Amino acid sequence: MSTALIVLAAGRGTRMNSDLPKVLHEIGSAPLLHHAMAAGMALEPSRMIVVAGHGAAAVEKSVTAFDEGIVTVRQDSQEGTGHAVSQARAALDGFAGDAIVLYGDTPFIRPETLKAMLAARARADVVVLGFEAADPGRYGRLVTTGDSLDRIVEFKDADDATRAITLCNSGVIAADCRTLFELLDRVGNDNASGEYYLTDIVGLAREAGLSAEVVRCDEAETLGINTRAELAAAEAAFQARRRTEAMEDGVTLLAPETVIFARDTVVGRDTVIEPHTVFGPGVTIESGARIRAFSHLEGCHVSRGATVGPFARLRPGAELAEDVHVGNFVEIKNAQLGTGAKVNHLTYIGDADIGAGTNVGAGTITCNYDGVFKHRTTVGRDAFIGSNTMLVAPVTLGDGAMTATGTVVTHNVPAGDMAVGRARQANKPGFATRFFDKLRAAKAAKSKGE
Amino acid sequence: MSTALIVLAAGRGTRMNSDLPKVLHEIGSAPLLHHAMAAGMALEPSRMIVVAGHGAAAVEKSVTAFDEGIVTVRQDSQEGTGHAVSQARAALDGFAGDAIVLYGDTPFIRPETLKAMLAARARADVVVLGFEAADPGRYGRLVTTGDSLDRIVEFKDADDATRAITLCNSGVIAADCRTLFELLDRVGNDNASGEYYLTDIVGLAREAGLSAEVVRCDEAETLGINTRAELAAAEAAFQARRRTEAMEDGVTLLAPETVIFARDTVVGRDTVIEPHTVFGPGVTIESGARIRAFSHLEGCHVSRGATVGPFARLRPGAELAEDVHVGNFVEIKNAQLGTGAKVNHLTYIGDADIGAGTNVGAGTITCNYDGVFKHRTTVGRDAFIGSNTMLVAPVTLGDGAMTATGTVVTHNVPAGDMAVGRARQANKPGFATRFFDKLRAAKAAKSKGE
Amino acid sequence: MSTALIVLAAGRGTRMNSDLPKVLHEIGSAPLLHHAMAAGMALEPSRMIVVAGHGAAAVEKSVTAFDEGIVTVRQDSQEGTGHAVSQARAALDGFAGDAIVLYGDTPFIRPETLKAMLAARARADVVVLGFEAADPGRYGRLVTTGDSLDRIVEFKDADDATRAITLCNSGVIAADCRTLFELLDRVGNDNASGEYYLTDIVGLAREAGLSAEVVRCDEAETLGINTRAELAAAEAAFQARRRTEAMEDGVTLLAPETVIFARDTVVGRDTVIEPHTVFGPGVTIESGARIRAFSHLEGCHVSRGATVGPFARLRPGAELAEDVHVGNFVEIKNAQLGTGAKVNHLTYIGDADIGAGTNVGAGTITCNYDGVFKHRTTVGRDAFIGSNTMLVAPVTLGDGAMTATGTVVTHNVPAGDMAVGRARQANKPGFATRFFDKLRAAKAAKSKGE
Repeated sequence: MSTALIVLAAGRGTRMNSDLPKVLHEIGSAPLLHHAMAAGMALEPSRMIVVAGHGAAAVEKSVTAFDEGIVTVRQDSQEGTGHAVSQARAALDGFAGDAIVLYGDTPFIRPETLKAMLAARARADVVVLGFEAADPGRYGRLVTTGDSLDRIVEFKDADDATRAITLCNSGVIAADCRTLFELLDRVGNDNASGEYYLTDIVGLAREAGLSAEVVRCDEAETLGINTRAELAAAEAAFQARRRTEAMEDGVTLLAPETVIFARDTVVGRDTVIEPHTVFGPGVTIESGARIRAFSHLEGCHVSRGATVGPFARLRPGAELAEDVHVGNFVEIKNAQLGTGAKVNHLTYIGDADIGAGTNVGAGTITCNYDGVFKHRTTVGRDAFIGSNTMLVAPVTLGDGAMTATGTVVTHNVPAGDMAVGRARQANKPGFATRFFDKLRAAKAAKSKGE
Repeated sequence: MSTALIVLAAGRGTRMNSDLPKVLHEIGSAPLLHHAMAAGMALEPSRMIVVAGHGAAAVEKSVTAFDEGIVTVRQDSQEGTGHAVSQARAALDGFAGDAIVLYGDTPFIRPETLKAMLAARARADVVVLGFEAADPGRYGRLVTTGDSLDRIVEFKDADDATRAITLCNSGVIAADCRTLFELLDRVGNDNASGEYYLTDIVGLAREAGLSAEVVRCDEAETLGINTRAELAAAEAAFQARRRTEAMEDGVTLLAPETVIFARDTVVGRDTVIEPHTVFGPGVTIESGARIRAFSHLEGCHVSRGATVGPFARLRPGAELAEDVHVGNFVEIKNAQLGTGAKVNHLTYIGDADIGAGTNVGAGTITCNYDGVFKHRTTVGRDAFIGSNTMLVAPVTLGDGAMTATGTVVTHNVPAGDMAVGRARQANKPGFATRFFDKLRAAKAAKSKGE
Repeated sequence: MSTALIVLAAGRGTRMNSDLPKVLHEIGSAPLLHHAMAAGMALEPSRMIVVAGHGAAAVEKSVTAFDEGIVTVRQDSQEGTGHAVSQARAALDGFAGDAIVLYGDTPFIRPETLKAMLAARARADVVVLGFEAADPGRYGRLVTTGDSLDRIVEFKDADDATRAITLCNSGVIAADCRTLFELLDRVGNDNASGEYYLTDIVGLAREAGLSAEVVRCDEAETLGINTRAELAAAEAAFQARRRTEAMEDGVTLLAPETVIFARDTVVGRDTVIEPHTVFGPGVTIESGARIRAFSHLEGCHVSRGATVGPFARLRPGAELAEDVHVGNFVEIKNAQLGTGAKVNHLTYIGDADIGAGTNVGAGTITCNYDGVFKHRTTVGRDAFIGSNTMLVAPVTLGDGAMTATGTVVTHNVPAGDMAVGRARQANKPGFATRFFDKLRAAKAAKSKGE
C-alpha cells in the first residue's frame, strides 16, 4: 500500500522572535523540518507534500535541498491545521493510499511510531497519535475505550472528568487519503478563532460510522518547538542521545559533553573524538581514526587511521584517505588527500588533489582563486612541498616532485624535479644593530618631545 | 535629589587563596567590583566613592578603568564596615542627599532593587536591604514590624526566637548622607573583634527616634563571593542568565552551554552564535551576523550580515562593516574592514584599513611592528591582495590595486596597479629524485652504523 | 616491611565494544591502568606486577611507558581472578612481605585507602577492602563482626538476610605474600563458571584459623569501568574533582566546566585558565601565568608570567621561560623560548632554541624537516625575526640579529647582522585594472555561452 506524507510547515513561530520561519531553525545542524521529513522518509512514501506559509520561499528551498522530488504547496492564509492539510489536495490528486499528517516543528517523532500508525490503519479508518503527558496542561484530551478513540476534546471544552485524562493529542493523524479529504470537506470554522481544525475529523469520522484508534508514543517524540529556550533544550536532548548512541557504537568520546554532532554524522568504532569538536552536516569518519581537540568538520570523509587536528578545519569536499595526517591551523576544502599524505601545520589546501605519501610543508597555500575563477591544484605521490610554498592554480606537480621553501609555483613541476624560486640570502653586517639603535633613538627623542 | 554611592572594596578575601584583591576577580570578564559599580551607576549618582584597602593600587586602577570620574579612598587599617564607610566622609564633604552603601564583592544586586531602596527613603530615615534566606545560617537577622525595621541582631547575639527569623541582613544600607555619618560617629568598637560595624547604625537610629525600613530582594542578588568555588558558581549563574536573555532577545545559540559572554556583550536579533565561542569585554554584534564555532572576540564591532570564524580572533579595535567575511585562523586587531571585504584564511590584519569589497588572500600579514614602533596599512576598495602578501607598514594600496602572490610590499601601490616582487620559478630536472636518494642513503648508513 | 602490588589487567572488557584492551581506555589522558598503578606507587612498593591477558602486548607497552621497572606477566587463559593472581607467583619468587591485589579497571582507589589496608595487616592475616553500597545489587556481601570479616558471600549464594547487608566486596585484598599464594593453592574451580575466585581465600583463611578484617572506603573509590558510558561518567567525576582541587589551590578557572585536565597536570597559584582549554599529559604551569581560551597543551612547561593563546598549541618539549608570549595560531614543539620572547601570530617553532627578548614575526616557520631528517634552529637573544621568515634548519642566528620580512634563511646570520633575501617590489601600472577587466569579460562570455 502506498503512503503519502503531508508535513505542515506554514507556521510563523512568533514566540521564536525571529525572521527565520520556525521550521528552519536547526537541531544538529539540520532544520527542524528535515528531522520531521527524515522520520517520514523512513516509511518510503510514494509522495511527500510540505505545506509552507510563513517564509514559504525559504521553506521551499530547504525542502528541495533535502530532496528534489518533494513537492511544496503554499498555504497563503493561516486558517488552521485543517485548512493547511487541504492545500495538499491538488498535489495528491490521483493518489490512492494512506496519508499521514506530520508537523515540521516536531522533530523527534520516530519512524517506528509512524510504522505503528500505518499498522493500526488495518484496524481503524482514522489513527491518531497520542501520548501520556506528565503535565497534560492545555493539550487536547483523547477519550478512548481501550485503543478505540471516541473523540478528541479540546482543553477549553473539557469538563473536570475529561481534564483528568492524561492521554493527549499529538496532532499526528493517519487515514486513507480520500477519506481524509472527504472528512476535511465537512470541517467547519464555526469556533472562537475561526479556524478549520484537523482534529475535528475524528468526531466527524465517528459520526459517519468510521472507526478511530489511538497509537501511543513517548511524550518526548511529540515535543514541539515554540521558543528558542525550547529549541536549546531540544538540541541538548538530541546531543545527549547522539553521544550515548556513539558510545554504544564503540566510539571513544573523551569529553562527550563538549562534542557537537550533526543529524547525519557517522563515526566508526574505536575512533577517538577528543574534547571540543564540532561536526557540521555531512561528515563520515571510518573506524580507528582520531579527531583531535578543537576540530571543525563539515561535508567530509575521514578514512581509517587518519588523524585530524587539533585546530583543524575540514570543509565540504575534503576526502582524507587512510592514515592521512592533518594537523593544526590547517584548512582543507574540496580536496582529496591520498593515503598517508601529511599536511601538518598552518596550511590551506583548497580545490586540490594531493597524492599518497606526499608531505606538505608548513605555511603552504593553494592559491585557487584569481579574483573571479577558482582553479585546481594537482600534486602527485610522494612529493615534498617545502614550507611556505605558494601553489598558484591551475598547476600540476608530478610524483616525487619537490619545491624549495618559499617558492611561488606558477608553472607545472615534472616528476622528480625541484621547483625553486627565491632570492638568495645576503647578510648585511651590523645592519640590525644600527637599525635598532636608530629606532630606539627616535623613540627616546619622541618621548622627550612629549 | 542627589545620590551618592559608597562601594566597600577593601577586603582581602583570604579564602580566595589569591594575590589578587577579591573584588578584582572576574565574572563575565569584568571585575566583581565593576558589576557592583554598574548596578550603582544605573541610579545616575552624582558621586561614587570606592573604599579600597587590600591591593588598593590595583583597585584604584580598576576603578579608573571603569570611569575616570569615580573617586577611590583608602582604608589603611581593616577596622570593620563602619570604619570603611567613614573613609568616604572627606570625599563626600559638601554633598547633600542620599547615600547608599554597596559591596564590591556582591556583583548581582539589581538597579531596580537600589531604586526601591531610594523610594523607601521617602518613608524612612534608614533603609536596609533584606532577603528571605533559604538557609539563614549565621546571617544577621532583621527584626521587623511589617516593613518597619526594629533592629538588626547578629547571629551570635540572637536567642532561639530571633534565630527562627529568616529575613536576613544583606548589609546594603541607604540613608541621608549627613545622617549616615552622624550615626557612624556614635558607633563603637566595643565588641569581640574590636571592629566598627555599619549595621550598628540601625539601632542607633531607632534610639534617636529615627525610622528604619526594610526593602526585600531575592537572595540571589545579595550573593557575596568568598571562595573560588563560589566565584565559579556565580560565573555559571551569570552565564546561564545571559544565555537565557540572549535567546529571549532573538539570538540563536546552537549550544548555549558552550558560549561564554562578557558583562557588556551586545548581540542583535537572529544573529547565530555557533558552539564554543568566547566573548571578552567590549563586543557588539548587530543583527543577522554569524559567529562561527571556536571564535574569540574582544573589543570589536561586527555589522549586519557579517560572518566570523570558525577559528577567528577579533581583537580590540576590529570593526567589521556589513557582509564582511573573516575566516579561519585569522586575527584582526585595531583594523577597519569595509563592506563585503573578505579575509578568509591564515591572516593577520593589524593596524589597518581595508576597503570595501577587497579580497585579502590566505597567508597575508600586515607587518605593523618594526621592533619599536607600530605603523598603519591602508588598502583601498575592491583591491585584490594575493596570497602570502607581506604588507610592510606604513604602506598604502589604492582602489582596485593588486599584489602578486608572495610579494613583500614595501612601497605604496597606486590604484589599479599590480605590485609584484618575487623570484621567477625554475625547475631543476631530477633534483628532487637525487636529493631524496642521497638523504635516504645517509639515513640507511646511519642506521647501519648504529 | 616490603610491599608488592599485583595489578590485574587481563580482562577483555567486552562491553566496551572496542579493540583496545579495557585497562588502556583513558581518563584524564592516562590509561585506567596508570591510575591504579599510580595509587599503588604511593605505597613505594618494592615490586609491582601487572597481570596482562587480552591485548597483552599493548598492555606491556603501556606498563613500560609508566615505569620501566615494573614487570608484566601474562595470563594466557582467562580462568578467574585467583588464577590471574597466581600468574604473578614466579615474578614474586623470593619476595617477603605484604601483597596487595589491585584492579587495572578501578582507577579511583586512593593511596590513603591502601595505606589503611597495610596498617590493618598488623591486626589481621587477610585484609579486604569493603564499601557501603548505595545500591548493593549483585555485589558480593561482606559478613562481619565489627571489623572482623567472617566470610564473603556471592550474591547468587546469599539468603535474604545476607542480601540485606550493604557492606560489599571491592575485590581489593591484602595479605602476606606467602600466605596469599598458599591460600590460592587451595582455591578450586568447582563452580558454575569453572573459574578460580580470589575471594575464596577469605573463607579458606578463616577455616585455617587465620584472621580477616575489612577496611572501608567510599563507594566512589571502588568504581570499576565496564562500558563507555561508565568511562564517560568516570571521566566527568575525575574532571570535576580536579577542577575543584585546582580552585582550592588558588588557580583561577573562568569556566571550569570547559577545562579538561590530565592526570598529571600541575598548575600554580593565581594562574588564569580561560575557557575551552585542554591539557594533555605532562604539563606544568607555574604561578601567575595566563592560559588563554582555546589552548591545547601537552608535555610542556610554562613559567611564571607567561601568556599562551588564545588558539595556541604547545606540544611536547615546549619550554617557555618567564614572561614569554605565545599568541594565536602558534605551534611550539620541542623548543625553548627564552625570557620575554614573543611569538605572537601564525607561527611554527619546532626543534628550536629562541633567545630571551627575541621577537618572532607573524608567519615565521622553522623548516625543521628535510623529508628524512629533522634539524635544529638556534636564535640568539634580542633578535628580530621579520614576518614570514623561513628558518631552514640547521641554522643559527646570533644575538640581536634581524631578518627582513619574507626572507628564506639558509645560512647562519651573525650577531647584529640582518639577513635579507627577497625580490624587489615593482609596480606594474594599470595591470590590475586590465587583469580583472579581462577576467570579468571571460566570465561574462562564459555565462552567455551557457
